[in-house]
Amino acid sequence: MSVITIERKVLEKNDQLAQRNRLFFEERGIFVLNLVSSPGAGKTSILEKTFLELRGSMRAAVIEGDVQTDLDAQRVAKYGVPVVQIVTLGACHLEANLVQDAMRNLDFTGVELLFIENVGNLVCPASYDLGEQAKVVVLSTTEGDDKPLKYPSMFLNSSLLIINKIDLIPYVNCDLNRLKNNALQINPKLRIFEMSCTTGAGFPEWCNWLKKKDVSSL
Amino acid sequence: MSVITIERKVLEKNDQLAQRNRLFFEERGIFVLNLVSSPGAGKTSILEKTFLELRGSMRAAVIEGDVQTDLDAQRVAKYGVPVVQIVTLGACHLEANLVQDAMRNLDFTGVELLFIENVGNLVCPASYDLGEQAKVVVLSTTEGDDKPLKYPSMFLNSSLLIINKIDLIPYVNCDLNRLKNNALQINPKLRIFEMSCTTGAGFPEWCNWLKKKDVSSL
Repeated sequence: MSVITIERKVLEKNDQLAQRNRLFFEERGIFVLNLVSSPGAGKTSILEKTFLELRGSMRAAVIEGDVQTDLDAQRVAKYGVPVVQIVTLGACHLEANLVQDAMRNLDFTGVELLFIENVGNLVCPASYDLGEQAKVVVLSTTEGDDKPLKYPSMFLNSSLLIINKIDLIPYVNCDLNRLKNNALQINPKLRIFEMSCTTGAGFPEWCNWLKKKDVSSL
Repeated sequence: MSVITIERKVLEKNDQLAQRNRLFFEERGIFVLNLVSSPGAGKTSILEKTFLELRGSMRAAVIEGDVQTDLDAQRVAKYGVPVVQIVTLGACHLEANLVQDAMRNLDFTGVELLFIENVGNLVCPASYDLGEQAKVVVLSTTEGDDKPLKYPSMFLNSSLLIINKIDLIPYVNCDLNRLKNNALQINPKLRIFEMSCTTGAGFPEWCNWLKKKDVSSL
């Protein structure tokens, strides 16, 4: 019972800090998305391709969260995007205070769009508000169409679902319609994008949506 | 600081219970493997194919761990293997006490091999001993060759690495040698199997190893 109480306190404290982050972003008109997924679903690849598509039209920044290494920050920095890496040293999710620390090290001049790439984990990050406008859950077709049912919290707490690696459907055991039905069964309000970083499928629609920053549709 | 103390106490308590589980298994000569991976890396598919290969030669049982649903237990039960499903209701890993509860509901008569399929999570289950002889980390090629560096604890705490979905290498951005080098950089003692549930590659070697129950080689 004591553990549950502490968890609640941790979450309450986190939510307060997240709200402070959210106010900071809203005052500056910065659209903030919290990217969550299993390891290897393609969050960083999606960012890389998104920055190529958005080049010249929208200034973006990134906060990277990883258990170890700054490999993802190195990848993203190549696109000329301001990036700060948070290394959690074993912790399985980002929390609002870590994001706050990272924000102090980012130059937000002219930034309209901030991606927070969470630790690769389809369970724990679901419970932590970071101050984002929306969570975007990325699920790759190679993970199988049953995952929304098996990890429902993440799909319930997200506003968008990116189904990634749709080019691999012919080679894997994944029924796209079943995947979408399973996701919508958990969260009927999910907005779904079907994408592939290899073929570029879905990126025009995704980037158009980003440019509109249409929070009202979430 | 208080949180750290509580975490330590939780882990100490867990380790004591795990040791009790281990004694139970050792007294009965049951070989126990704790399967860990990201969601969708193929743990359940590997079990299904393993049971097909082992049929008639070795009696196995399964403890399934999932955040929600008994979908995996249903899949495994089709192979005539005794199985108990643990639903963690949101918790991101199995602990020794949950395994102990599951053990009470399993008939171990004649069982030589027990698989504990952990929650799909490449971070949290690394810290929890369940009483297994070895952790087996499953990494699929679709997740990318950088994952051992980004999630080192799991690779450090595992004795075996199954590289799964090797049939998909032509279609994904994964260098098999780099993957193996990254894994061995974290843990030079890792024993590596390269497998595919689609083509059956690697299953004869894996099943031969299981039949030997060669703990000394770990």
